[in-house]
Amino acid sequence: MTRDGDGVMSVGGCDVRDLADQFQTPLFVLDEVDFLERASAFKRQYQRVFYAGKAFASVKVFKWVSELGLGVDVCTGGELAVVMRANVSPSEVIMHGNNKSLREIREALGYRVGLLVIDSFEELARAQFVSEELGITQSVLIRVTPGVEAHTHEYIATAHEDQKFGFALAGGVALEAVKRAHLLPNLNLVGLHVHIGSQIFDASGFAEAARRLANFAAELHRDQNIDLEMLNLGGGMGISYLPEDDPLSIEEMAAKLQEIVHEVFAEQRLPNPVIAVEPGRAIVGPAMITVYEVGTVKQVVLDDGQSRSYVSVDGGMSDNIRTALYGAEYTVELASRKSSAPLVLSRVVGKHCETGDIVVKDAMLPSDLAPGDLLAVAATGAYCRSMASNYNYLPRPAVVGVNDGKAQVILRRESIDDLLSLEPN
Amino acid sequence: MTRDGDGVMSVGGCDVRDLADQFQTPLFVLDEVDFLERASAFKRQYQRVFYAGKAFASVKVFKWVSELGLGVDVCTGGELAVVMRANVSPSEVIMHGNNKSLREIREALGYRVGLLVIDSFEELARAQFVSEELGITQSVLIRVTPGVEAHTHEYIATAHEDQKFGFALAGGVALEAVKRAHLLPNLNLVGLHVHIGSQIFDASGFAEAARRLANFAAELHRDQNIDLEMLNLGGGMGISYLPEDDPLSIEEMAAKLQEIVHEVFAEQRLPNPVIAVEPGRAIVGPAMITVYEVGTVKQVVLDDGQSRSYVSVDGGMSDNIRTALYGAEYTVELASRKSSAPLVLSRVVGKHCETGDIVVKDAMLPSDLAPGDLLAVAATGAYCRSMASNYNYLPRPAVVGVNDGKAQVILRRESIDDLLSLEPN
Repeated sequence: MTRDGDGVMSVGGCDVRDLADQFQTPLFVLDEVDFLERASAFKRQYQRVFYAGKAFASVKVFKWVSELGLGVDVCTGGELAVVMRANVSPSEVIMHGNNKSLREIREALGYRVGLLVIDSFEELARAQFVSEELGITQSVLIRVTPGVEAHTHEYIATAHEDQKFGFALAGGVALEAVKRAHLLPNLNLVGLHVHIGSQIFDASGFAEAARRLANFAAELHRDQNIDLEMLNLGGGMGISYLPEDDPLSIEEMAAKLQEIVHEVFAEQRLPNPVIAVEPGRAIVGPAMITVYEVGTVKQVVLDDGQSRSYVSVDGGMSDNIRTALYGAEYTVELASRKSSAPLVLSRVVGKHCETGDIVVKDAMLPSDLAPGDLLAVAATGAYCRSMASNYNYLPRPAVVGVNDGKAQVILRRESIDDLLSLEPN
Repeated sequence: MTRDGDGVMSVGGCDVRDLADQFQTPLFVLDEVDFLERASAFKRQYQRVFYAGKAFASVKVFKWVSELGLGVDVCTGGELAVVMRANVSPSEVIMHGNNKSLREIREALGYRVGLLVIDSFEELARAQFVSEELGITQSVLIRVTPGVEAHTHEYIATAHEDQKFGFALAGGVALEAVKRAHLLPNLNLVGLHVHIGSQIFDASGFAEAARRLANFAAELHRDQNIDLEMLNLGGGMGISYLPEDDPLSIEEMAAKLQEIVHEVFAEQRLPNPVIAVEPGRAIVGPAMITVYEVGTVKQVVLDDGQSRSYVSVDGGMSDNIRTALYGAEYTVELASRKSSAPLVLSRVVGKHCETGDIVVKDAMLPSDLAPGDLLAVAATGAYCRSMASNYNYLPRPAVVGVNDGKAQVILRRESIDDLLSLEPN
């Protein structure tokens, strides 16, 4: 992202005003170089990397990560369809999900996906059934809930986790799952999977999870004669949404995780496992911005006598539900010009008929913002377009990739006709 | 909703198992008679009723309410397109929105919508501009924020409201808006609009808002010689999601609101205004259920030694974001059979790759629930399908209307091809 002398923002060499003219607003703008650099950085640091498609899925993006040697993590038949359309090698696909249907498992194994992550006892049976039906041996991971939940700089360690995913280490549930998987003739138990949280800024939670898993692996080796090749640490690596956010860099996090895993596995006299990760947000999150056009600006006097500037843009909770859903915070800037007006307490809101329709709850923005100005909200690549709705029958925005002054459509904007296409004749 | 001797649920005379077979799950099932009765009840009780399309929009539903003599409340060009496709008379359309674009205002006024609700000073200018351009006089309401925020049995009354909509009564902002609207040559100021909250169970908040508006109307009459014909009290009438919810009935609420408005307007020696309302949830909410198929059932031991049954269904936060977004609570039942198994603490979760993907947080469900069972979640008509996403590339469910043993598609299920249709060629 750069600014010219008039303060106009460019991304990937494209002037945001030109992008807004050509593709309309709201618009997701994906900086292709930034995306590719992040994906490559992960690939350099880890033995196996699966891009988490749930963060943002599209044929082009799946092609890119695949060409860089990353695999793709999918969790539904829909995401699997995108992967196949992108000609990703099925062997580089890992399939997740707490409730994969028999049909989805049949599709995935029919394509010969590389890894199936087993999430429940029912699924062990389904995976064996389908593998036998197809006459294949399917490589699987067992998803373990280690009792560790991490977020930013904190983690909580408990015995039991009150959540839907995986098999609990506590109470021997994971042990039972591993033993059964090991015995099932058409399954090849490759290793374990954990996913401990999201927006994680340091390695402390991973350290505790790795310690618990190393103990478990040692127990499997000693008591069951089962040896595991792979430890998949899942995703959750955090990114900066605000200037004060300080996540470890991709390189620092990778070094810490490997040091931790190697240390705890060495303590247990176990060979180092292949370490796999599944970054989604950490690759695509910072690579995208959303460009909105301002429609109205309203000064609202508050009970304490201060005032807040409500800046309404042409999208909202339909293209970014994270603010309303998670209380997420974002950085927003005037993108289409320079302003030397004083900064005032502002709230960027959408155009939906709902008071909770807030894009950026608190921002300091120039007092001279006016209809027609363009705002850019940073780091909207993950879980914005992928969770977008048509609330209030707003068509979902386009996603365009920008690179070296050229823009290409990654996902086209919906039209009103698209929305009406679900009406019966 | 009825149950046969085997405990199988029927809605509108249709067996839920047949509906699931014919239309697949997840499935929204709309009881047409229930919908029409609620719409008719509102029409009988109020002088003007506008169905709030944001709760659930479709051509059929807009046709139905229109045939019953209700108008439709829209707030975007997209909702307006559905209204026009449904051949609703434009004179029965009211258009809302805090950030209507010039294009949307042009479209709406081009169609000659009955009422435009003015939300900001910018919009006053835009409405005048477009009306003059078209050579028409446009009837408008001024949206007022009276400092009252209501929810269930409570309301908060303040001077200032920290929200994006309307013109504050406090500080003379609404007065200024009314004066300007009154002066603009191509606008016909018909009255005021307020919307004080959602899921409101009693009339106390409306009473306070009506009191403030009556005082304001009296001030306008006395000081400005401006008389208003209409008071639009908006929506927000609550419905039962849980057995213990006790909202006033449509008739009781209407009687109270009219009594209150007439009383406070009489105190100010003002003639009774036309009272308009904009129910959305209160019409469509209770008329719909969501039918899901159970995919996995998992017992999770909690730290206190108790256990929770995690019941995974084939939808989730993509078809019902309200649980995650608002902490909404729902009633859920086993729909496809009778069970005499003991009820156990259960959580109905979706199939998305996210721990917050919860449909019903706490429910007592039979301990013998198994894959293939159908669950019905009640009162999902409002803000479920309308806020649905394709998170994890799940196609959005169909909506079918049921009536007298027959089922018809209201909105068809999306296909994977629909989702892939946004990919560029």
